[in-house]
Amino acid sequence: MSGGRFDDSDFVRACRSEPHPRVPVWFMRQAGRSLPEYRAVRGTGSILDAIADPDRAAEITLQPVDRYGVDAAILFSDIVVPAHAVGFGVDVEPGTGPVVSRPFASRRDLDRLRPLDPAADTPYVIETVRRAVEALDVPLIGFAGAPFTVASYLVEGGPSRHHARTKALMVGDAALWHELMDRLADLAIASLVSQVEAGAAAVQLFDSWAGVLSPDQYRRGVAPHSARVLETLGSTGVPRIHFGVGTGELLDQMGGCGADVVGVDFRVSIDEARRRVGPGRALQGNLDPAVVLAGESAARDAAREVLAANDGHPGFIFNLGHGVLPESDPDVLARVVQVVHDEGRVLCR
Amino acid sequence: MSGGRFDDSDFVRACRSEPHPRVPVWFMRQAGRSLPEYRAVRGTGSILDAIADPDRAAEITLQPVDRYGVDAAILFSDIVVPAHAVGFGVDVEPGTGPVVSRPFASRRDLDRLRPLDPAADTPYVIETVRRAVEALDVPLIGFAGAPFTVASYLVEGGPSRHHARTKALMVGDAALWHELMDRLADLAIASLVSQVEAGAAAVQLFDSWAGVLSPDQYRRGVAPHSARVLETLGSTGVPRIHFGVGTGELLDQMGGCGADVVGVDFRVSIDEARRRVGPGRALQGNLDPAVVLAGESAARDAAREVLAANDGHPGFIFNLGHGVLPESDPDVLARVVQVVHDEGRVLCR
Repeated sequence: MSGGRFDDSDFVRACRSEPHPRVPVWFMRQAGRSLPEYRAVRGTGSILDAIADPDRAAEITLQPVDRYGVDAAILFSDIVVPAHAVGFGVDVEPGTGPVVSRPFASRRDLDRLRPLDPAADTPYVIETVRRAVEALDVPLIGFAGAPFTVASYLVEGGPSRHHARTKALMVGDAALWHELMDRLADLAIASLVSQVEAGAAAVQLFDSWAGVLSPDQYRRGVAPHSARVLETLGSTGVPRIHFGVGTGELLDQMGGCGADVVGVDFRVSIDEARRRVGPGRALQGNLDPAVVLAGESAARDAAREVLAANDGHPGFIFNLGHGVLPESDPDVLARVVQVVHDEGRVLCR
Repeated sequence: MSGGRFDDSDFVRACRSEPHPRVPVWFMRQAGRSLPEYRAVRGTGSILDAIADPDRAAEITLQPVDRYGVDAAILFSDIVVPAHAVGFGVDVEPGTGPVVSRPFASRRDLDRLRPLDPAADTPYVIETVRRAVEALDVPLIGFAGAPFTVASYLVEGGPSRHHARTKALMVGDAALWHELMDRLADLAIASLVSQVEAGAAAVQLFDSWAGVLSPDQYRRGVAPHSARVLETLGSTGVPRIHFGVGTGELLDQMGGCGADVVGVDFRVSIDEARRRVGPGRALQGNLDPAVVLAGESAARDAAREVLAANDGHPGFIFNLGHGVLPESDPDVLARVVQVVHDEGRVLCR
């Protein structure tokens, strides 16, 4: 599909591996605690309250574009919003992350995951997208949590290092696992479609914790569900980004799930990632967010190494390998944007 | 060097990639909270108190050998013991892990890391090794934390997801970083040598969190220091195991650091790991510890897949890809040992 308002933007053209003049850049979690203007409007309490307030959510979405001049905005929201909205019972605790009072444990818990009706359940998301798109002169990226990563929160009851209960369910009761993943894929699809209909020019599927899985576990338990989300979104015509952390061993499979762009963390260089993902997909990444804490000079050097590894390929969006760390200095991030815009040339091949 | 009491054991022969009849097996954290007999003698309070008591520490070291019939014991200790013993100010909080009241932040903190005199600073470690070796009829594995993983606790002040301060120090102040790593390598060397002198038949260097690093960061900031530890231990003649989690991208470098055995987590299959590590090194791993929670049948199937991926290679020690999870059922682990002993054939090539 074409004819979108931002089809000629560097960001959308990079997603489609089409020629464009300079490497686009945005940062995961660019709207967040590292920004004083974010802390000024965010308010206290659950992030879900701020997300449910389109005034604040739209303003927060715009902040990093104003400050950094990045090439895309990303919706201010959270991956647990759909599960929360259908009443599963999940909240987000400041400093901890998503917490679930009654974790998913048996077939009965499937009933707590009814289909999402975005207009009725998450009208604030739609309204935030509309307002942000109206105010922005760069593409807005909508997003959802991938079924596995959302499942891991619902099963573990909160953040987890080993995701052991989640894996035990996946391996020990495959039938129930796939039903859970089906429901979560439906939630992601409904939410993403509603965001695109409201004006999002691209979508990102966050499978942040997929990297805890072995390639076989991912193949059997996860890939088919993420592929269904991404393939269904294909009919909207907007570019689809597929992201995870520590997914070096999964990049070939993630590339096969149907996204236009595959996210790469800092453990694999862009040239090696391109070899693994294969032709026809763009890449997004992969500056180590921790390097931003080492100061301007170190961050600039590292950004240049990322650009060098991309070697002018048109299918590339500069980003961090994971979200902006809260203790990041916005001035250092601003210099990274400057380096990418000044030196990130795209070569026609 | 040869002539060690256990040179003909399956475990030591596997470490040396020498022919032997059946695949040896042990489990990282086999002595731990998953065992009722452990919980019965462990006592409350800091694990450092139990480690400093050779009666308890030796008994705990023996427990999993008695229960499972594994092919090696591993010393009951902790990677922060040397730093604690020289007075850096580190404790281990139950349920949390190592915590440091005044994290490493500047050059002045180097003074808090004086050399370790094992006979004076950690006599209890030496005594525990002696007692365990006397009681055991299988090899005892001594261990130390690798400089990077210990540094990450000292710099972060506790467990961390992103290890951002540690990386920022490594990248932002390379001179200070290398001095810190030098001191920590000295601690590891002194502790490991004292364990071998007391009778340990092998050593394992735990670089559990090395997988958070990019290959470049590892090459510049970590590999030389781990290599120094492993090379120095080479003069003792005992096999050296080098372990980390999420190190798929680092396996070639870890193989190059000089260990006889490279540990592999569950993200990379043994056959692929062998390709990355290269010839002449044995491998150890790599059952996903989370699969143990899925029950006997799933764990047995997964153990057979690991054996199949090894395909009878003599340079292989069966283990988990990471430590035993506290909620593991010991009976399931016992069945895994049985499967490995019954079906883990070594083929002469």
